Amino acid sequence: MNQPVAAFAGRSLLSRYTACTVLAIGAHPDDLELGVGGTLARLARAGAHVVMAVVSVPGDRERRTAEARAAAAILGCELRFLIEGARRIDDFKPYQLVGMLDELVADLSPAAVFTHSASEFHRDHASVYEATVSAQRLRFFDFFSYHPTMCRPVPVPFNPRAYVDISETVDAKLEAINAHASQFSCRGIDTEVYRDFARLHGRMIGAKYAEGLDVGRMLLA
Amino acid sequence: MNQPVAAFAGRSLLSRYTACTVLAIGAHPDDLELGVGGTLARLARAGAHVVMAVVSVPGDRERRTAEARAAAAILGCELRFLIEGARRIDDFKPYQLVGMLDELVADLSPAAVFTHSASEFHRDHASVYEATVSAQRLRFFDFFSYHPTMCRPVPVPFNPRAYVDISETVDAKLEAINAHASQFSCRGIDTEVYRDFARLHGRMIGAKYAEGLDVGRMLLA
Amino acid sequence: MNQPVAAFAGRSLLSRYTACTVLAIGAHPDDLELGVGGTLARLARAGAHVVMAVVSVPGDRERRTAEARAAAAILGCELRFLIEGARRIDDFKPYQLVGMLDELVADLSPAAVFTHSASEFHRDHASVYEATVSAQRLRFFDFFSYHPTMCRPVPVPFNPRAYVDISETVDAKLEAINAHASQFSCRGIDTEVYRDFARLHGRMIGAKYAEGLDVGRMLLA
Amino acid sequence: MNQPVAAFAGRSLLSRYTACTVLAIGAHPDDLELGVGGTLARLARAGAHVVMAVVSVPGDRERRTAEARAAAAILGCELRFLIEGARRIDDFKPYQLVGMLDELVADLSPAAVFTHSASEFHRDHASVYEATVSAQRLRFFDFFSYHPTMCRPVPVPFNPRAYVDISETVDAKLEAINAHASQFSCRGIDTEVYRDFARLHGRMIGAKYAEGLDVGRMLLA
Amino acid sequence: MNQPVAAFAGRSLLSRYTACTVLAIGAHPDDLELGVGGTLARLARAGAHVVMAVVSVPGDRERRTAEARAAAAILGCELRFLIEGARRIDDFKPYQLVGMLDELVADLSPAAVFTHSASEFHRDHASVYEATVSAQRLRFFDFFSYHPTMCRPVPVPFNPRAYVDISETVDAKLEAINAHASQFSCRGIDTEVYRDFARLHGRMIGAKYAEGLDVGRMLLA
Amino acid sequence: MNQPVAAFAGRSLLSRYTACTVLAIGAHPDDLELGVGGTLARLARAGAHVVMAVVSVPGDRERRTAEARAAAAILGCELRFLIEGARRIDDFKPYQLVGMLDELVADLSPAAVFTHSASEFHRDHASVYEATVSAQRLRFFDFFSYHPTMCRPVPVPFNPRAYVDISETVDAKLEAINAHASQFSCRGIDTEVYRDFARLHGRMIGAKYAEGLDVGRMLLA
Repeated sequence: MNQPVAAFAGRSLLSRYTACTVLAIGAHPDDLELGVGGTLARLARAGAHVVMAVVSVPGDRERRTAEARAAAAILGCELRFLIEGARRIDDFKPYQLVGMLDELVADLSPAAVFTHSASEFHRDHASVYEATVSAQRLRFFDFFSYHPTMCRPVPVPFNPRAYVDISETVDAKLEAINAHASQFSCRGIDTEVYRDFARLHGRMIGAKYAEGLDVGRMLLA
Repeated sequence: MNQPVAAFAGRSLLSRYTACTVLAIGAHPDDLELGVGGTLARLARAGAHVVMAVVSVPGDRERRTAEARAAAAILGCELRFLIEGARRIDDFKPYQLVGMLDELVADLSPAAVFTHSASEFHRDHASVYEATVSAQRLRFFDFFSYHPTMCRPVPVPFNPRAYVDISETVDAKLEAINAHASQFSCRGIDTEVYRDFARLHGRMIGAKYAEGLDVGRMLLA
Repeated sequence: MNQPVAAFAGRSLLSRYTACTVLAIGAHPDDLELGVGGTLARLARAGAHVVMAVVSVPGDRERRTAEARAAAAILGCELRFLIEGARRIDDFKPYQLVGMLDELVADLSPAAVFTHSASEFHRDHASVYEATVSAQRLRFFDFFSYHPTMCRPVPVPFNPRAYVDISETVDAKLEAINAHASQFSCRGIDTEVYRDFARLHGRMIGAKYAEGLDVGRMLLA
Repeated sequence: MNQPVAAFAGRSLLSRYTACTVLAIGAHPDDLELGVGGTLARLARAGAHVVMAVVSVPGDRERRTAEARAAAAILGCELRFLIEGARRIDDFKPYQLVGMLDELVADLSPAAVFTHSASEFHRDHASVYEATVSAQRLRFFDFFSYHPTMCRPVPVPFNPRAYVDISETVDAKLEAINAHASQFSCRGIDTEVYRDFARLHGRMIGAKYAEGLDVGRMLLA
Repeated sequence: MNQPVAAFAGRSLLSRYTACTVLAIGAHPDDLELGVGGTLARLARAGAHVVMAVVSVPGDRERRTAEARAAAAILGCELRFLIEGARRIDDFKPYQLVGMLDELVADLSPAAVFTHSASEFHRDHASVYEATVSAQRLRFFDFFSYHPTMCRPVPVPFNPRAYVDISETVDAKLEAINAHASQFSCRGIDTEVYRDFARLHGRMIGAKYAEGLDVGRMLLA
Repeated sequence: MNQPVAAFAGRSLLSRYTACTVLAIGAHPDDLELGVGGTLARLARAGAHVVMAVVSVPGDRERRTAEARAAAAILGCELRFLIEGARRIDDFKPYQLVGMLDELVADLSPAAVFTHSASEFHRDHASVYEATVSAQRLRFFDFFSYHPTMCRPVPVPFNPRAYVDISETVDAKLEAINAHASQFSCRGIDTEVYRDFARLHGRMIGAKYAEGLDVGRMLLA
């Protein structure tokens, strides 16, 4: 294996966001847990104020809202829903979606934003990515995209550039994913695959488990 | 303009490399000054040990070596030459180039490496990039690519993802570039274009001057 | 620097469009001035009939319409608005947008069309680009895309292939941009950055100022 | 079909190069005839000084040199061989190849250069493309790449952006290709496929036959 | 030419789908005939149950429906229309389109699906491609994309990876295309260009005529 | 999970190559085992004649040759070494490498060839890929690329399009990898990561374990 992360000479970037607000945007409940749950838990434990923004709940609202609340509690994050009621992302025009995110960004002044990636196959996910790109024009923040998310497998190209060691939070991540019982256990879908996935990403940095992110724009110094 | 960087909520990454060694690799004298001079000066001033590794001096060795020394002194960096004498990068096989970098990385244990980018049009620059990619297999380090460098203009695609505010070091960068008189003033080539370029990159983050970098692989936390 | 354009052996393409109609399409007022204003002024001065087609005015219609008129007058171009009233591009379906452009192309028989580029981050800009691509099916015209436009900075990949020397019209371009006071001076946004940008593009062809374009399809001979 | 080219409102670019030198670079005999023969014939007939530069003759030198001479005569172009004797492109280092092209460009001051494309699968072809890119740094010229060339079919991605109507010179093109009997008729390889190909490209501009080119960098005006 | 396909050592994949259902999805009548008509005819003749699903009939419904029926009969395929009446693809939201295809896939359990390609310039075609990508999440099938289709020429990048020898069915393909008289003969558009196109694709595999396909996901063994 | 492969309606492609020769090309010993070992074992068990061609043994020849022999025996394949002695791939010019593969292809008339992928970071691997692309010009064969291979982790983009279910041969694959003790166990490198990897690829097709391949060119029917 690679030399262990413990031997990495630089300091963790965790401290960068310690006293800041970090915003994570997911199209639907469970997207953030799948894509970036381990990272959010690490940031929250390190003292950042982490806001999970779920854009829409496409159906079964009461149950899925409760699942999302349970998951956010496990990760130590604040949870917000952007679209009220049963309307879907498709029911909004692009400029309306941009408006929602502009408002959120103005309200939170986040130091970093985590969102879907450019290569997402799900139209809702791609719409959220595009709206987040536009939200950059009003305010600078570090912009990261997480791995394409899905309950069922469809291959999507994604080439991570930045890694977060989630060895200490991978269990919380899995627990948060499993809180979405309506999406996984009730359908007989095994979630251990996400642990396998984290192990493979971990290998790239010599850690036990990791999440990979794409970098849209960040301020190094 | 964008909101000023002063308002950016996160902490600078400078502190990440403060007590570390940072390695910058350029194919020839002046490449590092053009591509990443302002960043290296900032890192050096912040307390990092910055090594500028020049792979080859394709001709006029005495003069160009002296120019490179003067430039490194301006930026506050240590300078090393990898290939002795008049041999060119083309005179070495890819595995020999990888061997040189492996040795350098083993010697320095750098926390970050800055090198040419994947889209470079100059064969020597591309060879250095490829050898640096291979050097990653033995040891983890943050891997950044700087803007394609050239004295004379050839358009090359490059899409930066990470920015360094060089407002405080842009003058040192220009001074270091101008130390390469044989490449610029002696040929009547104006170097103020690099200040224009830094101003445009600066605009992307709301700073007066910046350098843009591509991110190959980095450890966020 | 490069050898000056004055030394370029070939003849200018200006003469190509001299007695022709050239169509430039922008999503909103100010897009054309930012992206291709210097080129349009040069074409108009050389005797081409240049039509600036603004697809929509997203708000503050009276003021922005007046600004657009002033800017078109500075550049010497005819101005048309495609969508009446307060409706936005998002309010039309793609085939409706294609229909508008089909009609415009049938009416004007343009020798060249300038439009947004494929990599635009603004959904409205991308929609205009896509509709222009479709408009090619009915009639041949030279198809060029201009640099992504925005008042506030968001990095967007764009690799120009064709350059227009705008040394003689860069002042008109800046004046036309500044005519959109509601977008720039009233918001405290400095427009000199567009002069810097033109200087950097100019460097690629050895001219003082230039605009860069992407080439979708053109007839060379 | 499209509206006929006759109806195209703009003037032909042929006049651009009429009193100029145009340089076409091919790795081996027959590459230029296959890729851009119809265009070269049109330019020559319009009064341009067209130089066909063949970088190497990989074997059977006497015969293939004679074939190339016959083909150049058919197209009305001057022919030059860059590498003497039996040495191959692989026998030269990249900087040596760049040196050869630098010399040629300095000698001819071409208004336009036609060369292989970036996506060529043949290593020699790719080397010639890369060296031509570098030759741009010393002098400005319009830079075009022609369709990947091969006697036997291997699919290679190539997306033309500029078209030349070769309806009047397609017969000369085929005749010039057939002059390379050692590569085609002697091996039982049918060359009519190149006429089919020209017909398909022609369809894109409403002409009977055309060649498609990629645009690296050009000065529009 | 290449060695003839007859000499290809492997067995045809035709047998793979012999007793299976194969689903081909086209945005409008004539898309499937243009893109994949020869392949569908071969599959039908070999015993596969081939369903041609036309998503919408944008106008002139009675006539175009009759033309599509005639074409499907020529190719030996079953024909289905997904959207009733005059509504267009643009009138449906992405999730509704995905729902239609989910239902179709659930109903047919296809072994392979042929659909538009990712690089289509027509918004309706791109929407059908994207919805088919999503339909993969519920069920595995071989996923192929056919060449961009259009009655009038607009260049679109497409790089086929898989070929089907249609030497025996190219006449049926042309006949099926010509059954759409309202789109071709009535507009004076020549369809022999599609035979030229098939000949060029054929050359890539040493067959007289072929269709090229992109491979999204397939099970080899 | 996805619906199980058992439910896939089509027939396996295994039968395609049953009585054929299949050629797998790897730059060094262990590349083929890592990239495509499970597929080769399945093909061999199904009756194909599988030839593993190792281009060079960069050092420690006796030991590594013996390891490669043991691994090939485990997979049931014939083994050939292309370069004798201690010379490296870098010691050969591209046309010499193409010549070696041309000879091998002429000798074996393979129905399919498996080789490195276009995006490989190791120069030797990329050279082998490029030479295989050229070898296509003389003879048609199905052309597949396997996942980038390395003992130590460097992230490389790779997007598989074709999958092989290796549930029955994953143990043989791991055993064959472990036969290269000098590369793994002797260096303390754990090989179970390749089982994890196969499990993740398997998920994409609903199988327990799979290998993913890119498709360069194949004949479907």
